[in-house]
Amino acid sequence: MKTMGAQLTHVSPGAIEIEAPLSPAVSQQAGIAHGGALVAIADSATGYAALSLMPPGTDTATIELKINYLAPAVGDRMVARGRVVKAGRRTTVTQAEVFAATAGQEKLVGLVTATFINGTGREEI
Amino acid sequence: MKTMGAQLTHVSPGAIEIEAPLSPAVSQQAGIAHGGALVAIADSATGYAALSLMPPGTDTATIELKINYLAPAVGDRMVARGRVVKAGRRTTVTQAEVFAATAGQEKLVGLVTATFINGTGREEI
Amino acid sequence: MKTMGAQLTHVSPGAIEIEAPLSPAVSQQAGIAHGGALVAIADSATGYAALSLMPPGTDTATIELKINYLAPAVGDRMVARGRVVKAGRRTTVTQAEVFAATAGQEKLVGLVTATFINGTGREEI
Amino acid sequence: MKTMGAQLTHVSPGAIEIEAPLSPAVSQQAGIAHGGALVAIADSATGYAALSLMPPGTDTATIELKINYLAPAVGDRMVARGRVVKAGRRTTVTQAEVFAATAGQEKLVGLVTATFINGTGREEI
Repeated sequence: MKTMGAQLTHVSPGAIEIEAPLSPAVSQQAGIAHGGALVAIADSATGYAALSLMPPGTDTATIELKINYLAPAVGDRMVARGRVVKAGRRTTVTQAEVFAATAGQEKLVGLVTATFINGTGREEI
Repeated sequence: MKTMGAQLTHVSPGAIEIEAPLSPAVSQQAGIAHGGALVAIADSATGYAALSLMPPGTDTATIELKINYLAPAVGDRMVARGRVVKAGRRTTVTQAEVFAATAGQEKLVGLVTATFINGTGREEI
Repeated sequence: MKTMGAQLTHVSPGAIEIEAPLSPAVSQQAGIAHGGALVAIADSATGYAALSLMPPGTDTATIELKINYLAPAVGDRMVARGRVVKAGRRTTVTQAEVFAATAGQEKLVGLVTATFINGTGREEI
Repeated sequence: MKTMGAQLTHVSPGAIEIEAPLSPAVSQQAGIAHGGALVAIADSATGYAALSLMPPGTDTATIELKINYLAPAVGDRMVARGRVVKAGRRTTVTQAEVFAATAGQEKLVGLVTATFINGTGREEI
């Protein structure tokens, strides 16, 4: 996230927003953000959303993530809004919408579902 | 891919291998590659595999991608091997395995399925 | 859908609801609906939602579908609510929530994302 | 599975094959098997593959499943071949290929990835 210049712009229990500039470093040909950059920001937004409902000190890890790319991610910034769909005992299921933003305009460019395993480092998956 | 220092290490019709260093820039806490970095390399490997079966000059775009994270991606390099499962008339379905490699050892860390739309820029999805 | 006794209970442009009894025929051991039954009803709800935004006479086909199972599907009925997230020129991306219902109570048991290809029989995928 | 007339046709540690007739009951218009039927047989093949590597008496539950539909499922029978990709401590990741078969010919019609949670009824997800 630091590499991408990402910032946490909203935090509430079970819902997180993260923004990052749509810089050349995360873009492919034609100034469109690379799909991996959208996944990185969505993974963080959903992961923090999952953590926000867990006891302090808990760890979590993504076990799977699915993205549908809906439109080219062209703009100044990426904005990912993650929320918890189901906080289970052993796994947490989340979703995120990813937007490309320019000035005051946002366009939905990615739809993400991600599953996290609760209370563990990834070692123990 | 340039940001990540990625290199095409194998090309044959319908099968592509890409490698990238597992540098701090793509790692999160604890020296584990960020999930977005695995997706970026897998997206490229599967996308080039799809393109390798299309007529020269054809374009393609990822419409959806799913990754299962199988183990922490710890090592010197990431290696993604993408292959075409079904080259359809309008879409191409692919898979990739992503490995974390150290010296001569590889560990499977990610399993990816991705769908591409044929013969178009992403604008037209 | 006929095998499952499914009924269309709500239709509006881009949003469809389908219900089906949670009979022994679609259940596995322990009276829980089989995952395939949840997919069948969600596939229909999202497919009709996609069709509801297309010109009359248009055909469509599911190209991929992902479900997260959130809780055991125990109850009298399954209810799937599908909606269009993005009606593109060549593909339509949809989501559905699937509930298990008993009397007036609903429990979210499945979260579905599905992609459809527009204006074609499946032959031409 | 009983409703569908499914049979276990091959069992080895981590790899399972299941067949079922492609009857009108699992078909939609035009004699093509409904997507839910392909998921049902693939879910069973991958679930049994996961169980085949667990201690006797262990239970498991599907937490998520993704299918890519590759071609219309037309034929006499469906055949699903499931295998374990990663048997983890807490989850098992699997894949299945689903074929439509007629006489001695098989056609790949579905590609499935499914994740199972180990050692639990679905209640505890």
